Amino acid sequence: MTSPQGPGVPGEPSSPHRTSTALLTDKYELTMIQAALADGTADRPCVFEVFARRLPSGRRYGVVGGTGRLLRRLSEFRFSDDDVEVLAHSLDRRTVDWLRDFRFTGDIHGYPEGELFFPGSPVLTVRGGFAECVVLETLVLSVLNHDSAIASAASRMTSAAGGRQIIEMGSRRTHEEAAVAAARASYLTGFSATSNVEATRRYGVPSAGTSAHSFTLLHTGPDGPDEAAAFRSQVASLGVDTTLLVDTYDITTGVATAVEVAGPELGGVRIDSGDLGVLARQVRAQLDGLGAHGTRIVVSGDLDEYAIAALRAEPVDVYGVGTRLVTGSGAPTAGMVYKLVEVDGTPVAKRSAHKESLPGAKRAVRLHRPTGTAVEEVLFPWSGQAPTEPGLETRDLLRPLVRRGEVAGDLPTLEQSRSRHLDAMVTLPWEGLALSQGDPAIRVRVVPPTA
Amino acid sequence: MTSPQGPGVPGEPSSPHRTSTALLTDKYELTMIQAALADGTADRPCVFEVFARRLPSGRRYGVVGGTGRLLRRLSEFRFSDDDVEVLAHSLDRRTVDWLRDFRFTGDIHGYPEGELFFPGSPVLTVRGGFAECVVLETLVLSVLNHDSAIASAASRMTSAAGGRQIIEMGSRRTHEEAAVAAARASYLTGFSATSNVEATRRYGVPSAGTSAHSFTLLHTGPDGPDEAAAFRSQVASLGVDTTLLVDTYDITTGVATAVEVAGPELGGVRIDSGDLGVLARQVRAQLDGLGAHGTRIVVSGDLDEYAIAALRAEPVDVYGVGTRLVTGSGAPTAGMVYKLVEVDGTPVAKRSAHKESLPGAKRAVRLHRPTGTAVEEVLFPWSGQAPTEPGLETRDLLRPLVRRGEVAGDLPTLEQSRSRHLDAMVTLPWEGLALSQGDPAIRVRVVPPTA
Repeated sequence: MTSPQGPGVPGEPSSPHRTSTALLTDKYELTMIQAALADGTADRPCVFEVFARRLPSGRRYGVVGGTGRLLRRLSEFRFSDDDVEVLAHSLDRRTVDWLRDFRFTGDIHGYPEGELFFPGSPVLTVRGGFAECVVLETLVLSVLNHDSAIASAASRMTSAAGGRQIIEMGSRRTHEEAAVAAARASYLTGFSATSNVEATRRYGVPSAGTSAHSFTLLHTGPDGPDEAAAFRSQVASLGVDTTLLVDTYDITTGVATAVEVAGPELGGVRIDSGDLGVLARQVRAQLDGLGAHGTRIVVSGDLDEYAIAALRAEPVDVYGVGTRLVTGSGAPTAGMVYKLVEVDGTPVAKRSAHKESLPGAKRAVRLHRPTGTAVEEVLFPWSGQAPTEPGLETRDLLRPLVRRGEVAGDLPTLEQSRSRHLDAMVTLPWEGLALSQGDPAIRVRVVPPTA
Repeated sequence: MTSPQGPGVPGEPSSPHRTSTALLTDKYELTMIQAALADGTADRPCVFEVFARRLPSGRRYGVVGGTGRLLRRLSEFRFSDDDVEVLAHSLDRRTVDWLRDFRFTGDIHGYPEGELFFPGSPVLTVRGGFAECVVLETLVLSVLNHDSAIASAASRMTSAAGGRQIIEMGSRRTHEEAAVAAARASYLTGFSATSNVEATRRYGVPSAGTSAHSFTLLHTGPDGPDEAAAFRSQVASLGVDTTLLVDTYDITTGVATAVEVAGPELGGVRIDSGDLGVLARQVRAQLDGLGAHGTRIVVSGDLDEYAIAALRAEPVDVYGVGTRLVTGSGAPTAGMVYKLVEVDGTPVAKRSAHKESLPGAKRAVRLHRPTGTAVEEVLFPWSGQAPTEPGLETRDLLRPLVRRGEVAGDLPTLEQSRSRHLDAMVTLPWEGLALSQGDPAIRVRVVPPTA
């Protein structure tokens, strides 16, 4: 498909997705910088913290997602000549020059990606001059709020799946680029694979997917539907280990046809509609009766963590999860904020009703029993002493991510972050794994700054 | 900020956002194409329809968003050599060659962007060979599901604002690219402006934004907070017509300081916390008492359509909406599906429980009273006769968007689509504007194909 220049797709730019991320920003950051440059406060040493005031209703933990992706996008945060030209209409010369020369030169610390977080956990700390820190606000929050929302929902689904395979297939229900990030965030928390091809290319997430109802319907001739022809074609093309979609017409007939076509070595059958628990049992019995003992049952169709858990006792081998995953299962954003907590060494905080933040830069540790179970998270002044408790181990939560503007060289890969998440889940008190509404699984205690 | 190559940000590609959209696709589309190429069905003439089975719980109408953006992204749907290399690992030679040469050569019709839709409305119809249509499935749905979800929520907010200005400022609560699309979709339905700088550059959406709490907090010295210094700086830099954020410390003091600094010609004050209705009244009285009769009151902070409506009687001039807008106000995806409805002229449909679709390609019209009010939407066979009713006007809903692979040259601009949305809202029966839970405002009647 081609589109004529200009009038073809009016107002739709030809290459919207550029490498530069600098304009993925709220305008007020730029106007604040203009005012700060003029009044001499732009370079005041500042500390900003990213945290969530609360978890989504009744959730017991959150998962930090997006840190690795954020660092890459921050390294692409440069105002190109084109960007500067756009901004020159609404900003003064000095600000435009400052933006053109912009390089972040400060420090960033953060919780490792895949780590758990709780209300108030300072998952990212950005330190530098006011202007160079505030200009990153929107991009930092966009990435962390999206990816952490998906990771937090995905982790509950992985946990509910209890070791069974779980595949991300929600690309079509969210923005096309958010889809790629969602595939990455769900893999982080233990999903097995994704349907999204770009996530495989970009992040190496294993890919999955065989066929849709349209493929079966395509095999309709003058004499009507021919499910067997569709199955024969798929098996011929993808091999006998493929997964055949058996619910286009009648599931019992579909299963019989599938085994007839592929033989008892058939890899799997997928059921995408109906009462999945009842159907899984029926299909398992039918498959076993046909000698297809190794044929896996894949279920999909509006699954969330509760539906996954409800299928625990059923003979399901693989879950396919779409809509509810990419929309954060009711919590599509992690609610993280980016707050100035320290200016020139002085703790600061606004006093707005219900939007208080805790003044002062904070470090964070978690105290663990000898068994590994976490009992408490403690936030304390950056320059203070890490708290200790008899019989408990104190583990640091913050890692250096950027030092003087340079991304730290020893950052984990996505695979390593995935392992870290699994390790972190083991430290969660058992009530933290409950899907029911409850309080955060770990209490966050704040040691105030000593004046 | 720079990042070293390779180990710097492991697994994070240097330029994730390429112009090509071809890999923003589910794998099963590619495996289906492989099987269809092998069995000779890849070029069978097919019709796919995009529709939503239902509206989000209790909503009375949906708004088609993203059509213009989709057409541009579809014109960028080409498999590059790099893409093909990635796919060569898992697809056969013939499929890889087919993808390398891929150009969509079919036809696309659709509801105009900004038009209303109801359950079953065929908002997009894609017609061509099976393979060239099915490969577009994920991208089509990603764009339409996201942008229509935002547009549908945004329209209710615009409607609730009843002519007052409403500004989109939710970028930080959603994926960084979804944010740009959300700004576009909200402008489509009547939002006045966006905080997102890239949306201004890319789509020409008017921009808005002045300052955050961090700017006020930045002006903290050895003697403590100095709100007046922050306000003086902002007014000096942005002019007296700027909007000052008055709730960092104490709102009454903040308003007094704001008018003292800027004079009664101050453009506006923003309140971002607390009971916005009560505060708006108090602040209006205070401003009027200070002679600042023209100073606008901007309110923000977790607003949705209900909160906006609840402030109707209060002296609010501008609403700022963030989280609830970019998350679709409880419905972050429009739930649209892409279904094969016709093969070689034969209507087809799967028979899965609760997931039925209506077989056969359909045209759509809406019947209007002489006053303009719509009374019914009618879907009828593509080759059939448009229904007429005495005393009612029949208006076509589908427009040609792509003809034989070429984007139609007479597509509306974003501004024109914005006007169309306002026109469409006027045709909605009055109960369609209610925010309360209810049935779709317009009934969709289906004229079945005559066998």
